[in-house]
Amino acid sequence: MSISEVSSSIELPVAIDAMGGDFGSSVAVEGAVMSWNTLGIRTILVGKKSELEGHLNVLGISAPNGISIVDAPDVVEMDESPSVAIRKKPDSSIRVAFRLVSECKACAVLGAGNTGAMMASGIVEWDTLPSLARPAIASLVPKQGNLLPAVLLDCGANIECQASQLVQFAIMGDLYAKKLLGYDTPRVGLLSNGSEATKGTEVTRAASKLIQTLEGINYIGYIEATDLAKNVVDVIVCDGFVGNVFLKSIEGSVSLAAACLNEVAKDNFIGRIGLMMASPLLKAVFEDKFDPSAYGGAPLLGLKHLAIIAHGSSTPRAIMNAVKVANQLSQERLTTMLDAALKVAAPRMRSVS
Amino acid sequence: MSISEVSSSIELPVAIDAMGGDFGSSVAVEGAVMSWNTLGIRTILVGKKSELEGHLNVLGISAPNGISIVDAPDVVEMDESPSVAIRKKPDSSIRVAFRLVSECKACAVLGAGNTGAMMASGIVEWDTLPSLARPAIASLVPKQGNLLPAVLLDCGANIECQASQLVQFAIMGDLYAKKLLGYDTPRVGLLSNGSEATKGTEVTRAASKLIQTLEGINYIGYIEATDLAKNVVDVIVCDGFVGNVFLKSIEGSVSLAAACLNEVAKDNFIGRIGLMMASPLLKAVFEDKFDPSAYGGAPLLGLKHLAIIAHGSSTPRAIMNAVKVANQLSQERLTTMLDAALKVAAPRMRSVS
Repeated sequence: MSISEVSSSIELPVAIDAMGGDFGSSVAVEGAVMSWNTLGIRTILVGKKSELEGHLNVLGISAPNGISIVDAPDVVEMDESPSVAIRKKPDSSIRVAFRLVSECKACAVLGAGNTGAMMASGIVEWDTLPSLARPAIASLVPKQGNLLPAVLLDCGANIECQASQLVQFAIMGDLYAKKLLGYDTPRVGLLSNGSEATKGTEVTRAASKLIQTLEGINYIGYIEATDLAKNVVDVIVCDGFVGNVFLKSIEGSVSLAAACLNEVAKDNFIGRIGLMMASPLLKAVFEDKFDPSAYGGAPLLGLKHLAIIAHGSSTPRAIMNAVKVANQLSQERLTTMLDAALKVAAPRMRSVS
Repeated sequence: MSISEVSSSIELPVAIDAMGGDFGSSVAVEGAVMSWNTLGIRTILVGKKSELEGHLNVLGISAPNGISIVDAPDVVEMDESPSVAIRKKPDSSIRVAFRLVSECKACAVLGAGNTGAMMASGIVEWDTLPSLARPAIASLVPKQGNLLPAVLLDCGANIECQASQLVQFAIMGDLYAKKLLGYDTPRVGLLSNGSEATKGTEVTRAASKLIQTLEGINYIGYIEATDLAKNVVDVIVCDGFVGNVFLKSIEGSVSLAAACLNEVAKDNFIGRIGLMMASPLLKAVFEDKFDPSAYGGAPLLGLKHLAIIAHGSSTPRAIMNAVKVANQLSQERLTTMLDAALKVAAPRMRSVS
């Protein structure tokens, strides 16, 4: 029985780097309280002990059930160079949180801070899975109505990718979609500048040829960014530069559409009344459907254990959602399964750059 | 006096490849009629003469003012390989249209067909400007309210770019924004995965360093795709793969938001009434503001003369808007100015790959 399996069978808590996030450590503390009260999931808050205890006191909770605190004197700030700060600060909250998992005291790490620091801590404290070059960040993008969202990866961890990395992203995205969202045979597509096989870059064309040959992957070929509005793809694979632009442009476009709607409403009284009547619908779409924090964070897929990045501007509810996802993926033994799937595909990867 | 200056001073007509476009040649014919009736701009319809005359007859116009027809027996279809088809079909409507400009019979080409065929015809019949490797496609993306749109380039002509190409796109986008939209000192930004100078790829970092040194360019550094919703940039520079994904994701996101709004309205009677009352506002944003055809086509910047690509699904009004843009940019002598600006910058380009 592997370490991961032991971990999941005794239901370890989720370690939260409480010092990350734009809104300070109180959000992490409230999120931990919500996680226990609402979901019954245990957490370990890692950070400056006195500060965290202070937040618990403000909430009127002195010896909380399901929440423990582990003291970590240092903090990696958002503006620090991740690789330097992580090495210089072995007792930073983020590294201590990662160590709790190595020591089998927690099942996963959750952080809402510096993405680069999460990546660097994961590599320093845990290392990547043996068959993988570098982990990828997987996010969810919405679909219409009640349809499950699609998985998008990489969202920014790997700016320049080789074909073999895109193939590995396809394998990891497929498994993540199955385990997190319950897809049976998710449709996997490679994001390109057109649907024809002649489109794309040398790297995407090489990756596309190889993904076709993978058993158990329902590969549908190239997809385009306009396919977002159609229900044609469940796992969208691309390099981290393109994925980052794609994810942020969805956010930018929807914000822009909402702002334009408010702008044109200024000169139209009846329209303005109409928008007020439709405000629950507008909120459901513009705030909830496209709210990145609704989905409970983005995992760093491919580390030896499970790490989840919550949005820097996470609310306590977003932290709770991310704790839920961390717990679920740990129970599902996602990391063990990723390791096995990447090992199976490894011999084929040698045929491409 | 250069050829371009002669062309503009005698107000040559715009040559339209009437055989391109998803909806057949009747759209081009109606667009030409609207251009003359509404704007007084002359056009030459290039394509199968009998077919085009038939469309004019249906419209009740037998000897139209301001419109002439040039017969071209061949057509490059949307699904043909552009480079092969263009060379095999010297008498295709698209090549004949380009030749009319070489022969000083038209000031610009407008096509709504195969983008690759437009590019290939431009290179075969005209060639690129001497200091430029390959032309770029420039599109417009909306901003809030009454703000002028931003220019985005390259939108798909150059899938893999060197730093020097991105620098040339910055120069061309700056001039295009000035000449088409009347920007005085447009803010030029390089699309990246973050705003810090350490972000991006090797290519974007090299390009960023060089653009900073260009005189007369108001370079603001890296921008992110979320900046779409903020009024911070007027010219967005990126390679054609990223630009294509960015442009299509705007279209996809806005379509998705509109579809989601209709979806949630199903279960909310009052909200549905509200949306009906606000329908002029919704139309103004979701249909008009984000309608790619509202902006009159995307030029292929960097050919020796002016070529405009209209959307494949253009309406007659979209064709008219594109004719107007072709006429305006020809009057503004955009190509001559691009040539001069690229020549000035050429010595610096040798310092980067």
